[in-house]
Amino acid sequence: MYPLFSDEYFMNEAMKEAYRALEKKEIPVGAVIVAEQRIIARAHNQTEALSDVTAHAEMLAITAAANTLGTKYLNQCTLFVTLEPCIMCASASAWAQIDRIVYGAADPKAGYSRIIQDIIHPKTTVKAGVLGEACGEMMSNFFRDKRQA
Amino acid sequence: MYPLFSDEYFMNEAMKEAYRALEKKEIPVGAVIVAEQRIIARAHNQTEALSDVTAHAEMLAITAAANTLGTKYLNQCTLFVTLEPCIMCASASAWAQIDRIVYGAADPKAGYSRIIQDIIHPKTTVKAGVLGEACGEMMSNFFRDKRQA
Repeated sequence: MYPLFSDEYFMNEAMKEAYRALEKKEIPVGAVIVAEQRIIARAHNQTEALSDVTAHAEMLAITAAANTLGTKYLNQCTLFVTLEPCIMCASASAWAQIDRIVYGAADPKAGYSRIIQDIIHPKTTVKAGVLGEACGEMMSNFFRDKRQA
Repeated sequence: MYPLFSDEYFMNEAMKEAYRALEKKEIPVGAVIVAEQRIIARAHNQTEALSDVTAHAEMLAITAAANTLGTKYLNQCTLFVTLEPCIMCASASAWAQIDRIVYGAADPKAGYSRIIQDIIHPKTTVKAGVLGEACGEMMSNFFRDKRQA
């Protein structure tokens, strides 16, 4: 168990979402959005189920969180996501002026940070590598199993 | 009237969507997605109505087009949009491997091209400035009226 309301605690919740994606044979990425230590949105990647490239976990979580709060600005929220956001999701987080992003595994291929770091909103802080190994293992296992299938 | 199925013809259809946004006091951006000279998706900016930063015209159009076609890849489609896509929307178009992007007015503030040109998919071609003046006027009138309100 992780200390209540720690970054690891919430990342573990994001990992539960990633497992849900995995069960549906989606790329296992999960996200939760937290405001005042409460999870106000949960989502997992649904690009296959919805046949929609925009249905990344973060995008769905941002939409759901804004819906919960009744405002499109999430400047008091933290996004926890198991994989480093891509440019689309990083840009969405910037439009939402999200307060903080915490991600698990780095994504050397499509992660925003190798391509353009300052796409993130200037007020957003970023923490990388929280439960990074476990999050990364879900991804590598998924793609290994896919290659062997 | 514009020649049937010309870029101007479809951009004019995107402008009709932008007017719909304007009527709802949304930032007036409209988009259509065309496959084999048929409009398969129409959308306008709904960030205010949906309280959702991800509800840009292009994002909604990409989701709708994928839904119509039953595939998330839009590699036979052209996106017509009245304003230069932002990074989020340009990245979504790359995930969708869209064949072509045609936009009206440039967006010197949030348009992708000044920030990072190669966010677009390498197979995607881009044409800028189609009915650009009229598209740009809608935007500048909107913001002028907003400042005076």
